[in-house]
Amino acid sequence: MSEHNLSDRAMRLRPSAIRHMSRLAAAVGRELITFAGGMPNPLTFPLEELAEVASAELRNYEGKNLQYGLTAGFRPLVEWIAQYMQDKGIHVGAENIVCTTGSQQAIDLVSEILIDSDDFIFVEVPTYVGALATFYKSGAKIVPVRQDHEGVDLNDLEAKLASVQREKQKLIYLISNFQNPTGITLTEKRRRMILDLLNKYDAHLIEDDPYGELYFGNENKPPANIQRGAPDRILYLGTFSKLIAPTFRTGWVAAAEPLIRKIELAKEAADLCSSMLDQRIVYRFCSSSGFADHVKGLRSFYAGRCQAMLDALEKSMPEGVRWTHPTGGFFIWLTLPAHIDPESFLEEAIAQRKVSFVIGRAFIPDDSDRNFLRLAFSVETPERIQEGISRLADLIRSRL
Amino acid sequence: MSEHNLSDRAMRLRPSAIRHMSRLAAAVGRELITFAGGMPNPLTFPLEELAEVASAELRNYEGKNLQYGLTAGFRPLVEWIAQYMQDKGIHVGAENIVCTTGSQQAIDLVSEILIDSDDFIFVEVPTYVGALATFYKSGAKIVPVRQDHEGVDLNDLEAKLASVQREKQKLIYLISNFQNPTGITLTEKRRRMILDLLNKYDAHLIEDDPYGELYFGNENKPPANIQRGAPDRILYLGTFSKLIAPTFRTGWVAAAEPLIRKIELAKEAADLCSSMLDQRIVYRFCSSSGFADHVKGLRSFYAGRCQAMLDALEKSMPEGVRWTHPTGGFFIWLTLPAHIDPESFLEEAIAQRKVSFVIGRAFIPDDSDRNFLRLAFSVETPERIQEGISRLADLIRSRL
Repeated sequence: MSEHNLSDRAMRLRPSAIRHMSRLAAAVGRELITFAGGMPNPLTFPLEELAEVASAELRNYEGKNLQYGLTAGFRPLVEWIAQYMQDKGIHVGAENIVCTTGSQQAIDLVSEILIDSDDFIFVEVPTYVGALATFYKSGAKIVPVRQDHEGVDLNDLEAKLASVQREKQKLIYLISNFQNPTGITLTEKRRRMILDLLNKYDAHLIEDDPYGELYFGNENKPPANIQRGAPDRILYLGTFSKLIAPTFRTGWVAAAEPLIRKIELAKEAADLCSSMLDQRIVYRFCSSSGFADHVKGLRSFYAGRCQAMLDALEKSMPEGVRWTHPTGGFFIWLTLPAHIDPESFLEEAIAQRKVSFVIGRAFIPDDSDRNFLRLAFSVETPERIQEGISRLADLIRSRL
Repeated sequence: MSEHNLSDRAMRLRPSAIRHMSRLAAAVGRELITFAGGMPNPLTFPLEELAEVASAELRNYEGKNLQYGLTAGFRPLVEWIAQYMQDKGIHVGAENIVCTTGSQQAIDLVSEILIDSDDFIFVEVPTYVGALATFYKSGAKIVPVRQDHEGVDLNDLEAKLASVQREKQKLIYLISNFQNPTGITLTEKRRRMILDLLNKYDAHLIEDDPYGELYFGNENKPPANIQRGAPDRILYLGTFSKLIAPTFRTGWVAAAEPLIRKIELAKEAADLCSSMLDQRIVYRFCSSSGFADHVKGLRSFYAGRCQAMLDALEKSMPEGVRWTHPTGGFFIWLTLPAHIDPESFLEEAIAQRKVSFVIGRAFIPDDSDRNFLRLAFSVETPERIQEGISRLADLIRSRL
C-alpha cells in the first residue's frame, strides 16, 4: 500500500532512538553491562507473594474474576489508590481514578482527550521518550522548556506559555520526582509557583510520578505532589511498574470531572479494560501488610545502586565530564565533553567496551545541546556498575 | 473546565447504550436472568491449568519474565499465532502479528493508523458496539451497509463505496463468523466477491473474528477467513478472550507490511506492551496438549446453550416475532413486532420480569429500523435460558 493511505497520526509515529540501541545491544548479548533500560531490578520482585496471590485468584471465585471488568479498574484497587493519594495530601476520591495499562496508556489517553493537532505541549528538556512518542503522534507543537538542577525553568516556561494564543490548549508535561532521564526533583518553591502559571495561562499539567516513592532515605522524600493544589488543572499519573513489577501493566490517572469521565470513555474505546487478573494481583499485594516494608526495601536497594554509580563516576571520570546527583529513582544524566559525538561513542561503547546506555537525543525533541547520556543504575550489580563506569571513563579518556 | 478545552476526539466519545442497561440491571441484582453481556461462561474457564501455569511463571525465571516486554508481544505466543493462522490457510508469518490488549485495542490501533476525520468507515448494520465507539471517536463518516442472512449485502456495499471520492481512505469493518450481534456468518461466495471490491475501490478491510472457533458441530465450521486472499488489504483480528478467558486481554492483529509496523509503533505509544504475565499464561495454555480438547468442549457447551434458547423461542414466542438461527458464537438477534418500543420494553423486562438483554439501537449507527434485541445465550444455564425466554414471550404477548 502507498503511504497516502495512512492517517496523519500514522505518518507522525516515529521509531524511538532506544530501538536502535537495542539492536546494537542484542548483537553483544549477555556479557553486556547495561545502563540502558530504565526498568526495575528483578531481584526486587516479590515472587513468592505474587505466586500465592495469583494462584488464589485463579483457583477461587469459580472464574467469575476472570471476566471483562469495569473500564475504570478493579474497584477495590481504585479505592486503595484513592486512599493512597489522600495519604499523600491529594484530595481525590475513587471517582477521580481510572486504572490504565501502565502510565504510558494514561499519557496516551490524556493526550487524546485534550490535544488537537493545532495545540501546544510544553515539555521540560530532556524528558521521557515514551511521552514524546505519544505527543509526536498527536500532531501538537512540542515546545521544549529548559530545565536546571531545581527542575523545569519557570521563566522559560512562562515566556513560552505567553507566546501562545489564549484559545489553544496548553498542556505541560512534567516528571516531578527523580525525573527520567535526569534524576532531578522539582523544588517545593517551583511546585507552588507552577500553580499560578496554570491559572494565569489557562493551561493543564500532566504530573507523571513513576519514581516518587523511590527516595533514598527519609531526608530525600520529595515535596508534596503538584496536584495537591489545583486538581482541576492537573492530571496525576501513578504506576505500580516500579513498585511491584512492570508485567502487570497497572498504572492510573487521577483527575477532576469532567476530564476523568472522558478518559474513562476514551479507555473504553481503546481496550475496554486492563487485565483484571493483573489488577487483582496488584491490589492483593499493595493492600497486604508487607507492602510498606517492600517499598522501604526498594528504597535502600536502589540507593545502594545509585551510590555505587556515583562513587564509580567520582573515582574514574576525567575532567570535563559532569553528571547529576539524584536522591531517588533510577537515573543519572551525564554530560560528555562537547567534542565527543554521542552516537559514535555509543556504538564504540557497545561494540568494544560492552557497555550500553541511552544517548540524550532520545529525550530531546529539538536540535538543542545533545552531548548527553542517560545511565540507569537500576539493573546491574554494584560490582558491574563500577566495572561499566570504569570502561566508559576509559573510552572517554581515549577520545580526549 | 469548559468543553472548549477538550479535543475534537474527546467531543466525539459517546457513552454506549449498554451502560444504561447495566445501570438498570444493577438495581435488580443477582436474580436477574441476563441475556445482555456478550461474555464467555466462567464454567468454561480452565482454572486449574491456568493456576498451575501462573504459579510456575511467577516462581521461576527469577522474575526476569515480569519485566516490560516487546511491543509486538511475547515472541513464542506470536509464533504460535502465526502457525495457527497458517493452519487456517492465512499466509502470514510472525513478523505480521502484533499482540494487543484484547481485539478492542486492535480496532483502535487500526483506526488510528488508517483513519483521518474526513475518511469513510463502512459497517454492516447492526454491528459490534465497541467498534462503533472507536469509529465515532475517529471522526470518520460511518456508512451503514445492509446485512441479510448471508452476511453483508455486497450490492449495497458497492453502491456506497462507489459514491466516495477515490482519494479518501475507505475502511470496511466486518465480523465474518457468527456475527455480533446477529449470529450471521458471511457466505463463502460473498467472501470471494468482497476481495474484488477491495481492489476495485482501493479499500481496506478489518476482518474481526472473535467467534470463528465456536462453531456448533463440524458441519457448521465457517468458510476460510477472508484474509486468505489479499492480506495486504485485510487486517485480521483474533482474540483469546472467548477461547480462554477475557481477563488476559490478549488479542492480536495480523496485517501486511508496512501496516503492521505502523500498528506496532502506535501500540508502543499507546501502552508500550500488554501484560507479559498474561501473554505467557495464554501461550502456555494454548500450546498445551489439552487446548484442542478445550476448544472442542467450548463448541459443545455453547451449542447446548444456543439450542436451549432456540427451543425456548420456538416454543414460547407469539406470531410476528422473528429471530436468527446461529450455528456458532454467543448471540441471537430478535425482531420485535413493529409497534413495540424497545426502550420501554427493556425497562419493563428488567424491572418487572427480571430479564435483561441489549436493545438494537446500541448496534446501529443511524436511525434505521431499530425494533431489535440482542440475546446472548452464553452466560445462563439452559433452565434459566428457557425461563427467561418464556418471561420475554409473556411480556411481548401482554403488549400485542
